Amino acid sequence: MKGIFITLEGGDCSGKTTASLMIKEELDKLGYKVHMSREPGGVKIAEQIRDVIIDVNNKEMDSMTEAMLYAASRRQHFVEKIEPILNEGGIVICDRFVDSSLVYQGVGRQLGIDKIYELNKLAVGGKEPDLTIFFDIEPEAALKRVSNGERKLDRLDLESIEFHNMVYNGYLDICDKFPNRIVKVNARATKEEVFNEALQLIKSKL
Amino acid sequence: MKGIFITLEGGDCSGKTTASLMIKEELDKLGYKVHMSREPGGVKIAEQIRDVIIDVNNKEMDSMTEAMLYAASRRQHFVEKIEPILNEGGIVICDRFVDSSLVYQGVGRQLGIDKIYELNKLAVGGKEPDLTIFFDIEPEAALKRVSNGERKLDRLDLESIEFHNMVYNGYLDICDKFPNRIVKVNARATKEEVFNEALQLIKSKL
Repeated sequence: MKGIFITLEGGDCSGKTTASLMIKEELDKLGYKVHMSREPGGVKIAEQIRDVIIDVNNKEMDSMTEAMLYAASRRQHFVEKIEPILNEGGIVICDRFVDSSLVYQGVGRQLGIDKIYELNKLAVGGKEPDLTIFFDIEPEAALKRVSNGERKLDRLDLESIEFHNMVYNGYLDICDKFPNRIVKVNARATKEEVFNEALQLIKSKL
Repeated sequence: MKGIFITLEGGDCSGKTTASLMIKEELDKLGYKVHMSREPGGVKIAEQIRDVIIDVNNKEMDSMTEAMLYAASRRQHFVEKIEPILNEGGIVICDRFVDSSLVYQGVGRQLGIDKIYELNKLAVGGKEPDLTIFFDIEPEAALKRVSNGERKLDRLDLESIEFHNMVYNGYLDICDKFPNRIVKVNARATKEEVFNEALQLIKSKL
């Protein structure tokens, strides 16, 4: 693969989406052709799988079932959308990727990072991003941002603050584990500051 | 787990379902309390996953996505339905289990038996049936049985005869690989003969 693959990671409401919209706009202005995506990324089969995952009625869902559904959805999104762009030398910035499963299912659901890594290796053949930006903000501060009610809560939003804290600590652990790939930005700062910090990191890879 | 876990395997239209209905009836008469199941087994989440797999419109589905969806569906069916029965010492006879994925995705889709085994080990923790009965009949002979039109064709029924032949050869290979667990019955025989042969095998485990 000749392209450049960048992923954005962080807890819910950590500001990834807002920043990615601003980044897209700025990179467009600068003349870069960048493909933004986020799982399930408008890929029909991946969306169908996602619907099963986030269905608030699916309270009986086993954690490993959930992890496998994320892996299946990721696989389809990757082979149908991301891989073809990278193979043609394109630039992809993706909101969430394997790291999300490592921390949400591996740490948050306590299935273990190693098992979830193994599962996701089957999904994406061990493909690692060239750069991962972690939006670093504590869950309590981040989740306050959702309380304006603009966003519809899904099955994962309904998790306890303890779950989100475990996820956050999981992120800090994998930042230590992959220091060459993952870079933190201070997501407690203003929108503009977060955007600028992320933009500089991305531009350094283009 | 204290219970007895028996699985039925074979190609499409190999007579598993017909035999399993007759077996259930006979074992009931003999006073055995046996739980018959087949994936997705009436488990809501497993059924939702199954719907995605067999949807004839999902032609873009990647083979590994398919394998992961089967594993996810199996996982949910296993933990929600099969495992609790086995833990209470019950008897479960299940139409299809991990072996189906080894041959359909591992051999038929050419993903490799080892990779699919690894994936399914994550799904069911390496649980192996106490006995697996393979309904041995060549695909061309078996598939003639569906042409009466009573059964609605799904995405997998629409595969080529070459695919079904690969699956059949895959079954023969895993019969050689697990000779202590998998026993063949001659599924080319009459319904009554197939039923009787399978019944004797099952009774020897009860």
